[in-house]
Amino acid sequence: MAPLVQRSGDAVFANVERVNAELFTLTYGAIVRQLLTDLEEVEEVNKQLDQMGYNIGIRLIDEFLAKSNVSRCVEFKETAEVIAKVGFKMFLGVTASVANWDADGASCSLILEDNPLVDFVELPDTCQGLYYCNILSGVIRGALEVVSMKTEVNWVRDMLRGDDAYELRVKLLKQVPEEYPYKDDE
Amino acid sequence: MAPLVQRSGDAVFANVERVNAELFTLTYGAIVRQLLTDLEEVEEVNKQLDQMGYNIGIRLIDEFLAKSNVSRCVEFKETAEVIAKVGFKMFLGVTASVANWDADGASCSLILEDNPLVDFVELPDTCQGLYYCNILSGVIRGALEVVSMKTEVNWVRDMLRGDDAYELRVKLLKQVPEEYPYKDDE
Repeated sequence: MAPLVQRSGDAVFANVERVNAELFTLTYGAIVRQLLTDLEEVEEVNKQLDQMGYNIGIRLIDEFLAKSNVSRCVEFKETAEVIAKVGFKMFLGVTASVANWDADGASCSLILEDNPLVDFVELPDTCQGLYYCNILSGVIRGALEVVSMKTEVNWVRDMLRGDDAYELRVKLLKQVPEEYPYKDDE
Repeated sequence: MAPLVQRSGDAVFANVERVNAELFTLTYGAIVRQLLTDLEEVEEVNKQLDQMGYNIGIRLIDEFLAKSNVSRCVEFKETAEVIAKVGFKMFLGVTASVANWDADGASCSLILEDNPLVDFVELPDTCQGLYYCNILSGVIRGALEVVSMKTEVNWVRDMLRGDDAYELRVKLLKQVPEEYPYKDDE
């Protein structure tokens, strides 16, 4: 399946409106800097980035479903491949690989070797404990929640912390049957 | 000159690394929302966005000069055309028009009809007075300062405030002779 999914990601990325990656990287850096100034505690910054990402994810999933031509995934395994090959490509212009499945197929890792969020970034010593890219975990969690998959998403490797790749662990907590997010009479 | 400059902008934009415009728009929206929450006063948010833009502009100018193949502009008139046709295109994927020059050629307007920062944005009544796109004025001010043009940049029209276009007024305050930004012994 992967090669087909991969081609689909390339085609979709070619057809969406785009902005300069460096502008995005610097703009994201400005957010992180602002949060570090305002919130003081690194742990709070991590939470806030994750929450911002969540809010973005619940909106981005609409664009994703509208433009990706991906049919709604039922299986978590297929979902992970689509996030890695179509989702990352469509939004960030890079692809991730899926690895390290657990025995019951409920947890896997998304591994990024190229990550446009971190170009030119070096963390000062005062930022130990910061998950600089934590917005990404929130985006995935938010987007998956809209398609009825409750997940937990955490970083297990981070190149800004000296690891050799970016690895996000995605754990499916609960899959609820598909339904409209709002009832008509609400 | 404009058509040549315009083609140059298109060519450069095709060759830079890019990310999805909607992701950028939503990420920028998350910054503005965060600042509104943290700073309370709309006027402070305008200042902070402008300052963030300035910090981004002094970095982006390097990418611009490295990748745009534009030779350093000496005249302010030419500079304005290059910002409008190459700069906006290279970073946001849209072009601006240059208009409303004053008699001594020291002030002009950059007019944007298409502005990816504001897709899906509606300002609540509590945000009257907010210049939502104020990061752009800061980016231009910062970038021009690096190439020795001190400017003042202000919004005169804003579609989020009900105007029919986005119009940024750029006023050249002082043009200092080119020199390295830092001396060797600093």
